[in-house]
Amino acid sequence: MKFQLESKDIQSKARAATITTDHGVIETPIFMPVGTVATVKGVHQSELKEQINPDIILGNTYHLYLRPKTDILEQAGGLHKFMNWDRNILTDSGGYQVYSLSGRRKIKEEGVKFKSHIDGSTHFFTPENVMEIQRTIGADIIMAFDECTPYPCEYNYARNSMHMTHRWLKRCINHLEKTPLKYDYNQTFFPIVQGSTYKDLRKQSAEFIASVEAEGNAIGGLSVGEPAEEMYEMTDVVCSILPEDKPRYLMGVGTPINILENIALGVDMFDCVMPTRNARNGMLFTAHGTINIKNKKWENDFSPIDPMGITDVDTQYSKAYLRHLFASKEMLGKQIASIHNLGFYLWLTREARKHIIAGDFLDWKNKMVHQMNKRL
Amino acid sequence: MKFQLESKDIQSKARAATITTDHGVIETPIFMPVGTVATVKGVHQSELKEQINPDIILGNTYHLYLRPKTDILEQAGGLHKFMNWDRNILTDSGGYQVYSLSGRRKIKEEGVKFKSHIDGSTHFFTPENVMEIQRTIGADIIMAFDECTPYPCEYNYARNSMHMTHRWLKRCINHLEKTPLKYDYNQTFFPIVQGSTYKDLRKQSAEFIASVEAEGNAIGGLSVGEPAEEMYEMTDVVCSILPEDKPRYLMGVGTPINILENIALGVDMFDCVMPTRNARNGMLFTAHGTINIKNKKWENDFSPIDPMGITDVDTQYSKAYLRHLFASKEMLGKQIASIHNLGFYLWLTREARKHIIAGDFLDWKNKMVHQMNKRL
Repeated sequence: MKFQLESKDIQSKARAATITTDHGVIETPIFMPVGTVATVKGVHQSELKEQINPDIILGNTYHLYLRPKTDILEQAGGLHKFMNWDRNILTDSGGYQVYSLSGRRKIKEEGVKFKSHIDGSTHFFTPENVMEIQRTIGADIIMAFDECTPYPCEYNYARNSMHMTHRWLKRCINHLEKTPLKYDYNQTFFPIVQGSTYKDLRKQSAEFIASVEAEGNAIGGLSVGEPAEEMYEMTDVVCSILPEDKPRYLMGVGTPINILENIALGVDMFDCVMPTRNARNGMLFTAHGTINIKNKKWENDFSPIDPMGITDVDTQYSKAYLRHLFASKEMLGKQIASIHNLGFYLWLTREARKHIIAGDFLDWKNKMVHQMNKRL
Repeated sequence: MKFQLESKDIQSKARAATITTDHGVIETPIFMPVGTVATVKGVHQSELKEQINPDIILGNTYHLYLRPKTDILEQAGGLHKFMNWDRNILTDSGGYQVYSLSGRRKIKEEGVKFKSHIDGSTHFFTPENVMEIQRTIGADIIMAFDECTPYPCEYNYARNSMHMTHRWLKRCINHLEKTPLKYDYNQTFFPIVQGSTYKDLRKQSAEFIASVEAEGNAIGGLSVGEPAEEMYEMTDVVCSILPEDKPRYLMGVGTPINILENIALGVDMFDCVMPTRNARNGMLFTAHGTINIKNKKWENDFSPIDPMGITDVDTQYSKAYLRHLFASKEMLGKQIASIHNLGFYLWLTREARKHIIAGDFLDWKNKMVHQMNKRL
């Protein structure tokens, strides 16, 4: 993996860069659409490419491990071939999903025992086997196995958990070195900073993570319920420590506003289920605020979904039509809204990049944050 | 509307023709995808055009009347504009849906009182108001209001119902003459032959329907549970009476085999929810038989969904991937299967047309019926 810093904003810590892997170039800042179980929900791979156009998408190790299972992915020749996606893929490590399974999992030094949300069967994730699973899935960027702490989190728990995540990181690295690549392209490994919402822990964790000198670094354990201000504070502390010449990935974030604010703090990569999940509930993100398309007020609004026309669906269909699809519980409503929201998220990070390069990022960001905060 | 007979098969009653309306040319035989409530379920209008490519689709008066309601369609400027579909549309009359509401409707000479399947509210359909509703929806081809009898149906009930359908037809025609067009294009009216599975009634009904000299004619009340042989017998009787120089539309039919057999009997137009409904249950139609993609046998079959590649999805995705999407209850599975099945249905009627024109329809039809009867 090659990371090339292209432009740094003078008024903020925002930066524009390119990451180059065997599956192509990733222009940052970037939002990575979430393809949980080898599909970005409701969106064809062709639409993803042609309408939304991300350089990289995300898959979930936990979900893919359970379905279709790693042996099927191995027989397919990896996730890229299985789902017919020839650009970059990043897989998370399953840490976050395991955290979400509270009550159905037990975390120990050795690893995490958990029950499948599908059939209740028992499984065991360790730093070692999660590296092997990610070798088999075959993403371009793979993540360390970590514990994601909840919010709020007791200081002592957060500290102990962080240290365990650091010990797990060493085990991940040791095991990866012994685990050969499965396919004919490289995989890059990102460790994850933890430390809950405690500045001193975040600092300590960022220093430790930086010290392993991975090719890129991630910030985990945020966007789990804490106020946005606390998130920004943590990102700021961590980004000031993580090396500048490597990509920074803030996991699971967030709203369009969260994304812009974190770009301003030096984050390069994002992922979140929000654009697709909210789309399926009829919530649209636009440059001028959010729309609840289920509201009766759109019933006879025959104007385009979004006159900006970022994706084809934005101008092909009217608000009244999209509202009708939601009122009638028609699949096409979710499909259209998903394309719209992802198109908007990718537009947003592309625009951020343009403005960083043009040197007027901060003004633009402040204007956008103000605009996007409205409900239409 | 203009109907041009282009080619007649010598060995069967199959024919190839073109129908020209203000929304373009319809090459027959044709299968019309069903867009119940202003959407072909799970399929974008752009995919419908580019991948499936039908000259005409169908909307359901009953469903559109309830949602989005006729006033919204009127404000939109008709169904074409509302759903962004600039090719032909045919609307049924609601007769079939009302028939399906058994227990929630009361049929009288004046019309049908029924309860909405959505909120239980009471509504009244008459031949007159159904014509007005269809004027407002604004389809290119609109249907008479009829009673669709169940199968089996007592002879006396079938006869009385048929006579009522004939009386309703007169009321439809009288009222249409008094009801001006709402939009800047023409609408063509098709009456419907009824008579259950009784040859003498079908004959009588076909003669009556032919006598009103409409621009096209439809056959209703079939594909409601009767054996295929009885359906073919009825189609045969009716097609021998309905005028040759006008299109013949067999409503609600059917399997790919039903379609080919009825083309051989002189039918030009078809519609059915089967390709999309079965798709959503994981059943794929192919030229070599049907596939239940949920079966474990496809789990590691990485060959294309359909090597014939009629639509892009057929070769973009593997059987194993599609099976995984169904196993994981992912929307994309239903989307892919719907495009595949509709693409196949449209391919089938286009091929039928080619073979009618080439003069080898019967041999091809017999081969296809044999092939498609398999389970893969």
